[in-house]
Amino acid sequence: HTYNIAVIAGDGIGPEVLAEGVKVLKEVAALDGTFQFSFTHFPWSSAYYLKTGKMMPDDGIDQLRPFDAIFLGAVGSPDVPNSVTSRDLLIRIRHDFDQYINLRPVKLLKGAPCPLADVKREDIDMTFVRENSEGEYAGSGAWLYKDQPNEVVIQNGVFSRKGCERVIRYAYELARKEHKTLTNISKGNALNYSMVFWDQIFAEVGKEYPDVKTYSLLVDAASMFMVKNPKRFQIIVTSNLFGDILTDLGAAIAGGMGLAAGANLNPEKKFPSMFEPIHGSAPDIAGQGKANPLATVWSASQMLDFLGYPQWGKKLIAIIEDLLVEKKVLTPDLGGTATTSQVGDEVVRKLEET
Amino acid sequence: HTYNIAVIAGDGIGPEVLAEGVKVLKEVAALDGTFQFSFTHFPWSSAYYLKTGKMMPDDGIDQLRPFDAIFLGAVGSPDVPNSVTSRDLLIRIRHDFDQYINLRPVKLLKGAPCPLADVKREDIDMTFVRENSEGEYAGSGAWLYKDQPNEVVIQNGVFSRKGCERVIRYAYELARKEHKTLTNISKGNALNYSMVFWDQIFAEVGKEYPDVKTYSLLVDAASMFMVKNPKRFQIIVTSNLFGDILTDLGAAIAGGMGLAAGANLNPEKKFPSMFEPIHGSAPDIAGQGKANPLATVWSASQMLDFLGYPQWGKKLIAIIEDLLVEKKVLTPDLGGTATTSQVGDEVVRKLEET
Ligand SMILES: CC(C)[C@H](C(=O)O)[C@@H](O)C(=O)O
Ligand SMILES: CC(C)[C@H](C(=O)O)[C@@H](O)C(=O)O
Repeated sequence: HTYNIAVIAGDGIGPEVLAEGVKVLKEVAALDGTFQFSFTHFPWSSAYYLKTGKMMPDDGIDQLRPFDAIFLGAVGSPDVPNSVTSRDLLIRIRHDFDQYINLRPVKLLKGAPCPLADVKREDIDMTFVRENSEGEYAGSGAWLYKDQPNEVVIQNGVFSRKGCERVIRYAYELARKEHKTLTNISKGNALNYSMVFWDQIFAEVGKEYPDVKTYSLLVDAASMFMVKNPKRFQIIVTSNLFGDILTDLGAAIAGGMGLAAGANLNPEKKFPSMFEPIHGSAPDIAGQGKANPLATVWSASQMLDFLGYPQWGKKLIAIIEDLLVEKKVLTPDLGGTATTSQVGDEVVRKLEET
Repeated sequence: HTYNIAVIAGDGIGPEVLAEGVKVLKEVAALDGTFQFSFTHFPWSSAYYLKTGKMMPDDGIDQLRPFDAIFLGAVGSPDVPNSVTSRDLLIRIRHDFDQYINLRPVKLLKGAPCPLADVKREDIDMTFVRENSEGEYAGSGAWLYKDQPNEVVIQNGVFSRKGCERVIRYAYELARKEHKTLTNISKGNALNYSMVFWDQIFAEVGKEYPDVKTYSLLVDAASMFMVKNPKRFQIIVTSNLFGDILTDLGAAIAGGMGLAAGANLNPEKKFPSMFEPIHGSAPDIAGQGKANPLATVWSASQMLDFLGYPQWGKKLIAIIEDLLVEKKVLTPDLGGTATTSQVGDEVVRKLEET
């Protein structure tokens, strides 16, 4: 079987880390022997925008539609407003392909650095199920009386029953399957429409999962506990915006942005899913071979899981952990001196070894 | 001069910690000799709600209006939906009295515990200027097709030019006065109306403050840096919701919720301002004398600053720091065995000593 993967390397360090991700995926396929990858590169990026006035062509979504998955590096550049780079490419793809699950592991691997003092490695092992298609990111609003003293701007968070139910159900299923607790993170005491509704759906869907132990936390308290007591979290379900904030915090406590991966899933596989490191384009270190490709390797592992090869997914995580423990071939963010491609090569070497 | 203070002790540990705050303020006035406090207690709370169906009487706001300040403990109880306890009392007061500045210090005092490994005490010393009257907390929204498959719930964040300008200007003034940097935290790459507007106002107002060095961060990146590199923050300005989340994270890195205070200010003094510990009502430890009153003492210090007695405000912070360093009279959350009132008594004793 051949999997067709659309590669959107994007800006800054995006192309550098994705090159390693592609290298690793090719090696996995070669070793497995039962499937292969075919990669098609799309140059969509800020540079593309500066040339064409668009982040992707008008039929960009249609071009991506036939692919089995999308592998994305990073978009963002000082020369283009971040509302354009994000909304017209990343958020657009998540939305148009109904990638309503953003699955983000926050797991402190052996050997990974952690800024928290009294925490054991095993205490940081959670999975965020972030709503990824609507909510605060719906992109709806109004802008009235521009530049007048009475100017007012409204941002609408749009929460649909279908949108909430499906992500919450996904999280319950995952918690059931993995025999883990499920923590709902919301903010019903202040957001008196959206989050009251969210909490209600969480309770409703929960009736079908009496075997799953649940907790509910306000987002402010959750951000405190992520630092004070990360052990209390296993599976977490939360809204688009809260998931965005808390998973960056998660990256901070679990080895840093160089290790943080995310999968944007359309679980029904009606549309392609998208896999990406969650870090940005880091223009300050672009082109210097300093970028850490391990977040991209981790997202490749998520792609392999999703395509039905969890044994390879696990293998890649084990190799990342080996690299972290050995501390020989790591990029500067992890205290090493290796280049981006040396780290990718080392992952390939370890794959071959086994 | 007599300052009339409205005391809303609220639920759970609220009355316990406020009793100590009142004790300390009385002592300060007695020692100063040029002013005194008169405290009027209002029983508004969840218990009040369960009796009357309301968190406060219909004319509650009018009853509070003549006061010089409001001293609030905590509201929240398992028996009343938190959307009611919060919105009908706390958020209502903030809003109706145009307390548009929520000023929250995040400062790691000597002797205070910190969960971060490689951080020096001096590295955590920031002040959050949180918008406190509108934005995500406007309370506006719609709830359509209740219980139908097409049910949809909308939460509107409402950002006015006036509302953004005044809080941002306040933050610039503070940064200028204290010769500090100002970091704007927002999320323009996803929230394409509200946060693009917010960033625009931040830039506009900034033209009047060329002497203030500024930074801009996305809220997700900010939550990461609070943990990885808190040193980069001095004065911070952000929206109502982001301020809520990040100041709890701030409490987590600066000694815990037992030390986190907040001032809800109407800077023009057209209406009473409100001072509160930012922790909740903690029903699990209520009535046991275990609650830490130091956050309340810190908020009393903010009240003294605001009323024009910064020398007493500073004195109280110095005493809190003494207690933390001496580690003799502290509540269990800080590793001690003292009761709530013993800690209050010790603050009073130290005031008398000086
Ligand atoms: C780039 C940005 C729009 C995006 C988000 O906010 O979702 C990013 O921060 C992420 O978490 O994937
Ligand atoms: C109680 C709640 C409504 C409140 C808020 O969200 O503002 C609290 O968390 C705070 O930070 O003061």
